[in-house]
Amino acid sequence: MKNMIIASTSTVYGSDYLAYLLPEISILFKDADTVLFIPYARPSGISYDEYTRIVKNAFAKISKKVVGIHQFDNPKEALENAKAIFTGGGNTFELVNQLYKNDILSVLKKVLENGTPYLGTSAGGNICGVSMMTTNDMPIVYPPSFETLGCLPFNLNAHFIDAAQNSTHMGETRETRIKEFHVFNSTPVMGLREGSWLKVKGNSITLKGNLTARWFVPNKTPIEIESESEFAG
Amino acid sequence: MKNMIIASTSTVYGSDYLAYLLPEISILFKDADTVLFIPYARPSGISYDEYTRIVKNAFAKISKKVVGIHQFDNPKEALENAKAIFTGGGNTFELVNQLYKNDILSVLKKVLENGTPYLGTSAGGNICGVSMMTTNDMPIVYPPSFETLGCLPFNLNAHFIDAAQNSTHMGETRETRIKEFHVFNSTPVMGLREGSWLKVKGNSITLKGNLTARWFVPNKTPIEIESESEFAG
Repeated sequence: MKNMIIASTSTVYGSDYLAYLLPEISILFKDADTVLFIPYARPSGISYDEYTRIVKNAFAKISKKVVGIHQFDNPKEALENAKAIFTGGGNTFELVNQLYKNDILSVLKKVLENGTPYLGTSAGGNICGVSMMTTNDMPIVYPPSFETLGCLPFNLNAHFIDAAQNSTHMGETRETRIKEFHVFNSTPVMGLREGSWLKVKGNSITLKGNLTARWFVPNKTPIEIESESEFAG
Repeated sequence: MKNMIIASTSTVYGSDYLAYLLPEISILFKDADTVLFIPYARPSGISYDEYTRIVKNAFAKISKKVVGIHQFDNPKEALENAKAIFTGGGNTFELVNQLYKNDILSVLKKVLENGTPYLGTSAGGNICGVSMMTTNDMPIVYPPSFETLGCLPFNLNAHFIDAAQNSTHMGETRETRIKEFHVFNSTPVMGLREGSWLKVKGNSITLKGNLTARWFVPNKTPIEIESESEFAG
């Protein structure tokens, strides 16, 4: 039975890394002393060790140890033995690339479906969708596929942001990009704003946080979903 | 001898499609009655025919006819016979996908190196770089490769925009994204602001328009390049 928190962002403005989520994480990871951390997304290109240190500092506040998956000779075994798993944000292309290179995407999916508690923020949340095709990230590496875990029956757009009013910038808005996705794909997309997260318990998916989320399906006007709304997963 | 205009955007704020570039395009395409248009990038997912109509209307102002490459049974021959080529903006992933699917990337490169005048805006400019790995676009389709024309010895970041001051958004800035690219790649990147374009004549590349461009190489602080600066191509 899936037991996951999937958050738009690790950090809300003006707050410490993961701080706004720590009460929820304490509950999610209540039966784990140690969290297995997947640092592959490397925000700003920091090393796996540096990234793991940042995560260690955050989890120390709720008395959890953290170990990086890169410290194991056998990452599949590490996933199978983990009592809690966290995938941090950064670049989704490189994250997905490394999941394929290390051949652990299917093992990760299996342990999540079997109930290992999982936290994913930003890129680490994107991979829970059907594909990574609605990421905002730059394609800095070429992964073998865009297909991801499919623990959610839709795609996520993390850090979702509404079009700026009165902008003079001619680049596409987030909404236009998702509309373009739906010319080629039928998978629904949830635009998850910073400060929102999804709580997944078995086949139930609930929108948490104070904000609404934006829901996109092909050929329909997007709608706003209220916080505490529940979906079938 | 290459003869190209590569622009950050087709349209500057408050102006008509291509309007700010028409004087330059008149010179670039002076020997051509008809422009071959590559509509594959499909902004907002519009059809090839719709997109071609928009381009026709713009080029009518400088008395040029426009024909879409999708109207030809043999797109390779169309490229080889063209007196002028324009690739419009939209989604770079789909543009590159179609260039590979139609197997025309190498023919396009050949005719551009042989001197067929070329205009590329936004996505149509991105493909002139070494790879499409510094696009801002969403990966809505999975192209066979991220390698592009390499008519420039660097990559472009079109619609380049500086980090907003006082933003509360936690998504990566453009500069952070390019920094992440340089963790995995050594190709220099030019951040080309809206209203800037590159004029390529043989092996000379000149920055045009009123703005500076931002130049990124690995492990160095980015610098601003003045308008009218000339590079070796």
